[in-house]
Amino acid sequence: MKSEDVLLRNILRGLAGHRDLVVGPGDDCAVVREGKQFVLLKTDCVVEDVHFLRRHEPARVGWKAICRPLSDIAAMGGIPKFALVTIFSPPDIDGTYWHAFYRGIRRAARKFQVTVAGGEISRQPHGIAISIALTGTMEGARPVLRSGGRPGDLLFVTGRLGGTLAGHHLDFEPRLAEGRWLSTYFRPHAMMDISDGLGSDLPRLARASGCGFEVDLASLPARKGHTIDAALTDGEDYELLLAVPARRAARLLKEWPFPRTDLTCIGKLTDSGKAPRGWPGGWDHFPVVRNPPLGQRAGVPSAKSRRTQIKGP
Amino acid sequence: MKSEDVLLRNILRGLAGHRDLVVGPGDDCAVVREGKQFVLLKTDCVVEDVHFLRRHEPARVGWKAICRPLSDIAAMGGIPKFALVTIFSPPDIDGTYWHAFYRGIRRAARKFQVTVAGGEISRQPHGIAISIALTGTMEGARPVLRSGGRPGDLLFVTGRLGGTLAGHHLDFEPRLAEGRWLSTYFRPHAMMDISDGLGSDLPRLARASGCGFEVDLASLPARKGHTIDAALTDGEDYELLLAVPARRAARLLKEWPFPRTDLTCIGKLTDSGKAPRGWPGGWDHFPVVRNPPLGQRAGVPSAKSRRTQIKGP
Repeated sequence: MKSEDVLLRNILRGLAGHRDLVVGPGDDCAVVREGKQFVLLKTDCVVEDVHFLRRHEPARVGWKAICRPLSDIAAMGGIPKFALVTIFSPPDIDGTYWHAFYRGIRRAARKFQVTVAGGEISRQPHGIAISIALTGTMEGARPVLRSGGRPGDLLFVTGRLGGTLAGHHLDFEPRLAEGRWLSTYFRPHAMMDISDGLGSDLPRLARASGCGFEVDLASLPARKGHTIDAALTDGEDYELLLAVPARRAARLLKEWPFPRTDLTCIGKLTDSGKAPRGWPGGWDHFPVVRNPPLGQRAGVPSAKSRRTQIKGP
Repeated sequence: MKSEDVLLRNILRGLAGHRDLVVGPGDDCAVVREGKQFVLLKTDCVVEDVHFLRRHEPARVGWKAICRPLSDIAAMGGIPKFALVTIFSPPDIDGTYWHAFYRGIRRAARKFQVTVAGGEISRQPHGIAISIALTGTMEGARPVLRSGGRPGDLLFVTGRLGGTLAGHHLDFEPRLAEGRWLSTYFRPHAMMDISDGLGSDLPRLARASGCGFEVDLASLPARKGHTIDAALTDGEDYELLLAVPARRAARLLKEWPFPRTDLTCIGKLTDSGKAPRGWPGGWDHFPVVRNPPLGQRAGVPSAKSRRTQIKGP
């Protein structure tokens, strides 16, 4: 995904702006102004043999296809509204597949109150692909960007990380309620969703905020039976990563109203802009061991005491 | 495209509506309410070996990819605003291709004043595909739907039809200015863009309006060197098809302010709901020959006198 990041950044550089374009390419969603409202715009896709396999139930593929961009709406603290679904269908797939696929879309649409406003089907010679574009609203709240983090902010993640290929990647629930509560009542300095793994995504948030970072690896909320390495690199977690001022961290943990969603403090933003050593290349290379654990967790036992930490870019 | 129409209609039936969803799937664009404004939403796609070939210049592919949904915005009489670009890139394609592709996007975006608000790239094992979602505004005008036609309305098409594979399908200009002028100053009863060929698209407009239709085939503005059959069935014309009250037809032709865009009267809507005989299956089977030509054309010599006509569903 890294090389795609760079390619997109290069390509999109030099595109004209617009007075109503508040946030362009590079954050979880684009933010545009419609009258006095902020509107969120997001597109994402799933591709056979990249994000799912032919043997996966089509309804779960539909669920995943729409929940991925929903997770980006969640990461801005927004409320999803309308969806446009574009289907690329190869000759060896028939209507039965797409009916089942839409059962997943419909289930997610009902659950997260999205309305499918339009759909398109095109033939494609090989392989299934789907892209979904979403609009969302902020209804008074301000969108939470990746770029607002400040040195000293504590970093939190929701839920558990890693081991997603066992099924979570097809069945996850985007953290819409959590993101919305955060944007409305708590206003984190920065937020994003973890889709490529904390190892890739945390540096993005730090870079967008012009910060470095430190993480207490022992505090990472790895999914049961999975390693810290998996929590860093597996990806497809669709959890929220947020940066909050240290002085409000205790209140956040105290007031967090989602008993079934863990909230774990995993580290902090720093003013170092240095390139990370061994991050996120792999577990073996994590070199920096530092002082007290930042790990705190709401709804689950507090972090263990392994003191491994790493400095980020 | 017919079977895809049916599949989509079946799939999308039963999806929940929304109080702000004014026009859902089935028209050129979805129309939603944002405060006091109408907002248009559209997604469309191009696929290698379906809509373009590997040997086509990527900048032209980019142009086509964004101009296709722009043509749908034009067909509602809207003003395009933001674009989201989703790219599916196979391993044998590198960044050079996408840079060139984006030159085409950028040229169209500048010319038609669209802002690229977001982009996404995903790997795909085989073949190139691109989907583009657009938002548009109506700024005071009301969107022109497919469904507003009434028996007796005269049917007009812009430009020339058929023979598009020679190059037009990669280089066409969406009729945004024309569509906007029509929605603002003239308010056709119904309008759509011709993307699958008049043979497929006119029955859609008629059906949506609960009408039948008659066409004076001799009046069809076939592209130079191409047959009426080509004009009916080639597709990828990206011209506008509109229905206007007969009493305003003369004024439309007189006031039409686009000297470089032909406007041709090709027939009328009728109250017959009968299934078409031989439409659009092929030239050989056109059976119905009827009276005086409806053909009138602005900006070009008036229609020839061949009196072939056909009744539609």
